[in-house]
Order: sequence, then C-alpha cells, then structure tokens
Amino acid sequence: MASPLLPTFFTLYQVFDEHAGADGKKATLDKKEVKTLMKKELPNLLKGNPDGQKLLMDFDGDGEIDFKEFMITISCLACFFKLAFANGLKPLF
Amino acid sequence: MASPLLPTFFTLYQVFDEHAGADGKKATLDKKEVKTLMKKELPNLLKGNPDGQKLLMDFDGDGEIDFKEFMITISCLACFFKLAFANGLKPLF
Repeated sequence: MASPLLPTFFTLYQVFDEHAGADGKKATLDKKEVKTLMKKELPNLLKGNPDGQKLLMDFDGDGEIDFKEFMITISCLACFFKLAFANGLKPLF
Repeated sequence: MASPLLPTFFTLYQVFDEHAGADGKKATLDKKEVKTLMKKELPNLLKGNPDGQKLLMDFDGDGEIDFKEFMITISCLACFFKLAFANGLKPLF
C-alpha cells in the first residue's frame, strides 16, 4: 500500500501554489492571498479570530509569506491538531 | 468543497502515531521506529541514502524524535518537494 505521506507533500504544494499564484507571483502569498487561503482552507480558524491571517507568520517581515513560512505555520497547526486529537478534543480548525 | 488541507493534518498525525506507538510509547519515535517509518513511508529516500533515517532530525539529542522534530523534517522535505516539482523535476522520495 502506497504511503499516505507522499500525497501530503503534493497537497501542501498544491494549496500554496493555488493561492500564491493568484497575482501571478507564485513564490509568495501576499496579504490578500493569505486571507483567501485562510477563508477557504481553514475557515474555522478565522471564526473565533478575525485576525487569524496573522497566524500565517511573516518571519522576515517583508509583508509576504513564502513556502518556508507557510510550512512553519502548517507545522504549528499540526502540533495543535495532534495535541487536541490525542486528548480526545475536536481541533479548532 | 472541503479543504484538502484538513485531511493533511490528520494524515501527519496518523503516520506519526502509527509508528510511534509500536513500542507503546506514543509520544516519540525511537531509532527502530524511525527506520520502519522511513522504510514504509519514504522508501525512495533510503535507496540512495542508507543512513536516511538520520534525516529525521533529533534536535535535542535525546535519541528519540518527537512530533515537533518530525514536523520540522516534514517541512524540510516539503520544501525540497516544492523546489523539485516547481522546476519540473521528479522529487527523490
């Protein structure tokens, strides 16, 4: 049976690429693209937190989120997901 | 249409949990569990690199890989995957 992990890499790439490419600049997500991504991909996260897009961390402060910054956020959310799920709680997003 | 991102969190959790739980200690992957995970989930990565399991980075040097360390490795591999895929190359794993 093929590993479920491999399609995961493709999904992460595809989600980033779909939203980052909206303005033709595929390498980064600008503020508008971050908001669209959060609304479509993590709608529940925004419900309790209208500034939820600030979760996508712009570490270098250039006003844009590149794939490395996107993956750091995904990793943090994955840790929250595991913490909730392993303790029988429903993850927030 | 539901977001493809949400099942990704579940897959990452499930893959880690399946392998980490083998010795009953679910919080971490020991050396043997790392090797089994790599063989099953990222077999191609080991082909060219028999010490491939060292890719799963034991940052705190305690001899075990926790979920945070697992996610750092996943993030690095996702960046390699994107780099290869965005340039029309076939990812190594």
